[in-house]
Amino acid sequence: MLLIIESFAILLAVPFSYYYGSRSLQFSTLMNGKDDLLALLLSAVFIFLTGTAGLIFTRKGSKKDIGKREGFVIVTMAWIIISLFGAIPFVLSGAIPDYTNAFFETMSGFTTTGASILNDIESLPKGILFWRSMTHWIGGMGIIVLSLAILPLLGVGGMQLFIAEVPGPTPDKIHPRVAATAKRLWAIYVAFTLLETVLLMFGGMSLFDGLCHSFGTLATGGFSTQNASIANYSPYIQYVVIIFMMLAGINFTMHYFALKGMIKKVSKDQELRFYLAIILVSTIFIALTLILKNLHPVEEAFRQTLFQVVSIVTTTGFVTYDYLQWPSFIWFVIVLLMFTGGCAGSTGGGIKISRLLLLLKNSRLEMRSQVHPNAIIPVRINGRVVPQQLVNNVLAFFLIYFLIFAGGTLVMSLLGLDFESAIGSTAATLGNIGPGIGIVGPVSNYAAIPEGGKWFLSLLMLLGRLELFTVLILFTRSFWKH
Amino acid sequence: MLLIIESFAILLAVPFSYYYGSRSLQFSTLMNGKDDLLALLLSAVFIFLTGTAGLIFTRKGSKKDIGKREGFVIVTMAWIIISLFGAIPFVLSGAIPDYTNAFFETMSGFTTTGASILNDIESLPKGILFWRSMTHWIGGMGIIVLSLAILPLLGVGGMQLFIAEVPGPTPDKIHPRVAATAKRLWAIYVAFTLLETVLLMFGGMSLFDGLCHSFGTLATGGFSTQNASIANYSPYIQYVVIIFMMLAGINFTMHYFALKGMIKKVSKDQELRFYLAIILVSTIFIALTLILKNLHPVEEAFRQTLFQVVSIVTTTGFVTYDYLQWPSFIWFVIVLLMFTGGCAGSTGGGIKISRLLLLLKNSRLEMRSQVHPNAIIPVRINGRVVPQQLVNNVLAFFLIYFLIFAGGTLVMSLLGLDFESAIGSTAATLGNIGPGIGIVGPVSNYAAIPEGGKWFLSLLMLLGRLELFTVLILFTRSFWKH
Repeated sequence: MLLIIESFAILLAVPFSYYYGSRSLQFSTLMNGKDDLLALLLSAVFIFLTGTAGLIFTRKGSKKDIGKREGFVIVTMAWIIISLFGAIPFVLSGAIPDYTNAFFETMSGFTTTGASILNDIESLPKGILFWRSMTHWIGGMGIIVLSLAILPLLGVGGMQLFIAEVPGPTPDKIHPRVAATAKRLWAIYVAFTLLETVLLMFGGMSLFDGLCHSFGTLATGGFSTQNASIANYSPYIQYVVIIFMMLAGINFTMHYFALKGMIKKVSKDQELRFYLAIILVSTIFIALTLILKNLHPVEEAFRQTLFQVVSIVTTTGFVTYDYLQWPSFIWFVIVLLMFTGGCAGSTGGGIKISRLLLLLKNSRLEMRSQVHPNAIIPVRINGRVVPQQLVNNVLAFFLIYFLIFAGGTLVMSLLGLDFESAIGSTAATLGNIGPGIGIVGPVSNYAAIPEGGKWFLSLLMLLGRLELFTVLILFTRSFWKH
Repeated sequence: MLLIIESFAILLAVPFSYYYGSRSLQFSTLMNGKDDLLALLLSAVFIFLTGTAGLIFTRKGSKKDIGKREGFVIVTMAWIIISLFGAIPFVLSGAIPDYTNAFFETMSGFTTTGASILNDIESLPKGILFWRSMTHWIGGMGIIVLSLAILPLLGVGGMQLFIAEVPGPTPDKIHPRVAATAKRLWAIYVAFTLLETVLLMFGGMSLFDGLCHSFGTLATGGFSTQNASIANYSPYIQYVVIIFMMLAGINFTMHYFALKGMIKKVSKDQELRFYLAIILVSTIFIALTLILKNLHPVEEAFRQTLFQVVSIVTTTGFVTYDYLQWPSFIWFVIVLLMFTGGCAGSTGGGIKISRLLLLLKNSRLEMRSQVHPNAIIPVRINGRVVPQQLVNNVLAFFLIYFLIFAGGTLVMSLLGLDFESAIGSTAATLGNIGPGIGIVGPVSNYAAIPEGGKWFLSLLMLLGRLELFTVLILFTRSFWKH
């Protein structure tokens, strides 16, 4: 079913392909890296037929058979399969002739990472670029429904914290609940995308560029249609992108509450406050340093800093400045911000603000309990007691995240990357950010990563995006034995 | 009382000072950096008098008043005070004229870190070098009694895991229990020190060098009397040091059990097995790489690797080779090993093997509980159930350790260190290891760290050595309000 949807999504790129001059349907245009019309059409047909064949030939099991265990498999396989097939247009058009590169780019798109292997983005045909940005947007849609409707039911990733707050009918049956939640939040997602597109077009962008950048923003993805990302656009456009990146990094239920007029509920949300505080403090700290060191004029220092901070915290990965040019302690702050992630229930990846908040609160209580060992004080978020089991889950998540980070850095070192690049590439893909430090810095890309490394980093993107457990659980013995 | 003991300890360096030619008691020999006899004597007298004055003039409170809260203050202050005073001989003799440097070196000694600011160790007078190594040995003694007798009573650091196993009378009263435990384990500590000294002297070391290196080994400290550390000594001596570093990194209660003939209890200890497994796997991995890359002959590759791995895992910090010369992924493995630490109840610092074991087991169970949420399976170590409260404590420790590591790296970056050096200096001092990476690598030292950085790293050594909580707790509000 997903493949059929994917095939229609690819077709949405066809008008842009046609409009920007790709009008030949001759087979000789395949793999030429310029005309993409036929490649898009053929890919869509092939993926549609594969999906239809799958629907026809698979055994029709009872829907009641779908339990938690099947849920984990479905979610993980969904991301892998749409990436495997979504890479076809890139290869077929010759835009990215190598399948490993095409798969990396597609997985990077669907996981809303935004890590690219492309050296010259602007040379690509427009239809392909549109499909590339749309992988972000589809991925973001998937993440919203995943993190706010499916994962809480699977008990993954500490999202239970927010399950009581999800707008939707009472959770009697899985299907109607998921569908209702998805519809409400997708409406907000679509509205934001259109609003940003319009605002970007006011700033001089074409419809094509406006849509692509809005896709990249709302999904916290980071693919741009320009080699220089957002750097060459006007300050107005940069501020628009900043605002929408910030919105995309917020729990979408908060937007829902805000639209319903429940402002008090939104303004008192501890995760939202912590998110804004992290952005504010980091921005002031970095901007002040840049101003005091006379590296930028005041407004520019503030804008460049805010842009980079918001882009990293929300795990978007758009850039307007090569932050590696700043003093090393500044980009070390940026590396630290790679471990925050957006709010839970946003399209942002990474560890997530709510987890950090919970960990910090728990650590403080743990310190207190050293002095008063008999006073058992539960952790509270937004005034509600967090069950100990959930705290443990989050603590385990945090530990496993760092184990994977350490192991990932080791693997990348083994593949020949230097220390900084190994850290940068691992943190930036596991956190679904995109640009890192070292050879995968903000003005470089992932083209130079060895082949095996690209597959490995694709796995890290998947792991990070699906909150680790969803994927890791498939590798445990207890999952497979009944 | 501690100051009085410290003054006598300083006097132990006097015979070596005299034997190696410092015989003048003229005041002109002070601060000349060569003769240290008068400096040692004056320091001892001054510290003795200060200690005596303290004993006389402080209000004699009832001993029953000493509770947990006082325990935290006493332990933290003990390390700070003996370091503040222990630095005096270095300054007075002119060996380290600058007090900041002298304090750093002394704190590094008492915390068994082994980070040094000395560029030319061999030029120092022998009495001072002996005192320098003895700060390690005294620190190690303190750590044994702290980690196996005092901290479990204070409920700090997850050492309760092992409290039931500590040899000693039943814990009815604090004082006799602490004393009895200390006596038994100190006897082992002293016996190992003497045994290593004898074995090192067989290899050609003088009594002076043998004692100093044994002090550095058993305390997992790392101060050497040679500029080249252990590199210029024979393979025989290197193997002796390896064996005793490994012994020092093991829970001292295991040695006690082994001596009592309870071999089965020792051989089944999960922490010990995990400790040996980490050393074995890392050594094989690195040594094989070095052999395959033809960087060293087989025996040398094995010895150099084993030495460096054991030295880092046990947090000793002796070196026989500049591991930064090896391919970068190898020293990345070494950086990872900086986050293991020795066994709980050893003289090793860092996170500790038992905590890692507990975290890994807990993570595995947490994964399993995602599939079977209703099956509550407790974590077991050595067959015994670990209470959930203890698991939480260890998880909080781990998180705070990484927060301090990240914050510390940021501070060191702010002070102007490059990325690798900031990471290296923070990891190596917080973990009480000594040599790190970057400008504080195995063949460099901490001399180039700016003044403020030396005080800050001294704080990290203290934090790491006292299992974080002991110190941090003093900075919480709930500690100070009744």
